[in-house]
Amino acid sequence: MSDLNDRAIALHKKFQGKLTTSSLIEINDRDDLALAYTPGVAAVSLAIAQNPDLSFDLTWRGRTVAVISDGSAVLGLGNIGPQAALPVMEGKSLLLKRFADVDSVPLVLATQDPSQIIQFVKNVAPSFAGINLEDITAPACFQIEEALQNIGIPVFHDDQHGTAIVVTAALHNAAKVVAKPYDSLKVVIVGAGAAGLAVARMLLGLNCSEDSCQRLPESTSVADVIVVDSKGALYTGREHMNIYKQAVAGLSNKERKTGNLDDVVEGADVIIGVSGPGNITPEMIKAMADKSIVFAMANPTPEIMPDAAKEAGAYIVATGRSDFPNQINNVLAFPGIFRAVIDGRLTTITHAMKEAAAVKLAGLVSNPGPENIIPDLFMPNLAEEISKAILEVKED
Amino acid sequence: MSDLNDRAIALHKKFQGKLTTSSLIEINDRDDLALAYTPGVAAVSLAIAQNPDLSFDLTWRGRTVAVISDGSAVLGLGNIGPQAALPVMEGKSLLLKRFADVDSVPLVLATQDPSQIIQFVKNVAPSFAGINLEDITAPACFQIEEALQNIGIPVFHDDQHGTAIVVTAALHNAAKVVAKPYDSLKVVIVGAGAAGLAVARMLLGLNCSEDSCQRLPESTSVADVIVVDSKGALYTGREHMNIYKQAVAGLSNKERKTGNLDDVVEGADVIIGVSGPGNITPEMIKAMADKSIVFAMANPTPEIMPDAAKEAGAYIVATGRSDFPNQINNVLAFPGIFRAVIDGRLTTITHAMKEAAAVKLAGLVSNPGPENIIPDLFMPNLAEEISKAILEVKED
Repeated sequence: MSDLNDRAIALHKKFQGKLTTSSLIEINDRDDLALAYTPGVAAVSLAIAQNPDLSFDLTWRGRTVAVISDGSAVLGLGNIGPQAALPVMEGKSLLLKRFADVDSVPLVLATQDPSQIIQFVKNVAPSFAGINLEDITAPACFQIEEALQNIGIPVFHDDQHGTAIVVTAALHNAAKVVAKPYDSLKVVIVGAGAAGLAVARMLLGLNCSEDSCQRLPESTSVADVIVVDSKGALYTGREHMNIYKQAVAGLSNKERKTGNLDDVVEGADVIIGVSGPGNITPEMIKAMADKSIVFAMANPTPEIMPDAAKEAGAYIVATGRSDFPNQINNVLAFPGIFRAVIDGRLTTITHAMKEAAAVKLAGLVSNPGPENIIPDLFMPNLAEEISKAILEVKED
Repeated sequence: MSDLNDRAIALHKKFQGKLTTSSLIEINDRDDLALAYTPGVAAVSLAIAQNPDLSFDLTWRGRTVAVISDGSAVLGLGNIGPQAALPVMEGKSLLLKRFADVDSVPLVLATQDPSQIIQFVKNVAPSFAGINLEDITAPACFQIEEALQNIGIPVFHDDQHGTAIVVTAALHNAAKVVAKPYDSLKVVIVGAGAAGLAVARMLLGLNCSEDSCQRLPESTSVADVIVVDSKGALYTGREHMNIYKQAVAGLSNKERKTGNLDDVVEGADVIIGVSGPGNITPEMIKAMADKSIVFAMANPTPEIMPDAAKEAGAYIVATGRSDFPNQINNVLAFPGIFRAVIDGRLTTITHAMKEAAAVKLAGLVSNPGPENIIPDLFMPNLAEEISKAILEVKED
């Protein structure tokens, strides 16, 4: 790692970051200037003043999104602040460009106050076609995203939905591999932060708003999910739960199991770690049902290392890492999501769209196997395929 | 104009705006990904977490500024809103890149509330090396800029200071051409908005904060300035003046002249229009001193057309237009200013720096003449020269 770290720092220093802006138009003389700037630009401005939606056609807005973070929950590093979050956001911008040809701008904020973040995003909205919220801590991230669902452009918190989409896709294929119907799966989720609750919502087909969730009638869902936080399983009526945990608790853990992870993992088909290193033990895996599925996604150090999980009897193991098979990485989803935002000029990203993205992502693996439940990051046209699948379920 | 307008709209439609982002690093395999994104980027983030100033060295922040507008005073078009302002801001980004190789991002805001704009800029500051405020109406622009003078990066309202710098430079050369000492000039300014008050402050060498101005001891200044708004000349004690007009009134118009523009223009050496078409008449120019200097900068239609001004006796005429000699255009200044912000990692832009920029800009015209008082926009290395001049007066 130390060599990689040194190389990463050297690379960032060499180029002073990673992203740059450039002009699509050459400005070599006064005529060029008169067209791109004054006086010609006044005609463009007047056209947009008459119909603000033309800003999507006549400026870069129509193909550009913002990647916004307050630096409160960056990678596995925690609350390291906005400046330290910037290399990650700049990285996301790179990936949006590389994998989906989407222009984007990283914006990191000097505030972690949800109401200020909400106001910030509302105020910057006329500049962009969509907003990717990133690395914002739970439960603030839920409040923020929910307050921004009707601002005219989609606001998508990738730590929640990107993760949920890719996990769902991987789980569809894993279920095939172990020959268990998806809707029979009993799933335990370790961690009740942004990713944990979002994965629970997605696997259960829930549409949640603050303190209540509804099961979406047409969505595919697993049989049951138990979400476990540091105080044990979530269940209706448990103490020490924020409103977002309460809402999920109400429609998960059907048997109202109590206790800690060791207690509730018994007989589970799937365990999904979105927490931290060491939180899944070999004993837990031994207590699971046959042909157990283990997604240990803490980064860079998984909840349990793949070899240890296999040794304990796991049939399928996935992590967030590129040096093991089955890399569950948001890069598989978010470029395609934002390609759809641009191509479909979406104003919101619905649950049906997320599900379509997950199903498409799963379907791109032609022969799922224990070490092949999710496409490779560099699969050609991945983002385009996902974008198309999303736009097929767009209601006009 | 109609042909130009059609071509401008067609160009903007063809490219869907003008600006794009791209990656400085190729991402072709997992190793590239590991360096630019996870896990390598974590080392970069941790280094910045320990020393946030490293964000200037290790991310694009160190070479990128924001161009921010609320769309309240766009070109000569007025309050046309954020979406309609975006083509202009995108144009400024193009010019920053083209003339000074500065990366920038146009941001247009869904609010015109000064306190929200102030909060927005404070919150976005960790993302950028500097902020160019643009096309924000007076007097809000004064309040906003002043509240943002100590946020760690420079905040520069170009409609004020860019205009003031270029006008000052042009006036230095114009004074030489008419062989009048700069410090003997009596100047009338038509318009008391962002540009009018800023030009007055600069020509008088004033450092103003809200309701008070001080004369800067070391600055060069003209003999007197009279600023005229729609209600006539500003003078101490006049009614209907906001605090910014009051502050300038206190140190201008030494003879406390009252009345309208016709009254106060008599005997003036210089008249500077930063208002609207038709506001300067041939009769006014006839009433001025010998070898009168007329800057009619309303855009696209000047306060008086150059031929009419000349016919009325003006010795030197400048406008904001590219189709007449002596184009006074902010493009002459702001790219160099932001080049200096980047190269010098400035935290503020002082009056001395603005004056150095103006003096350098004037000095770049080797043989000033009646139709040659300001450099051509396309003069090679213009921005670099201005940047160097600014950095020479930077206090360490």
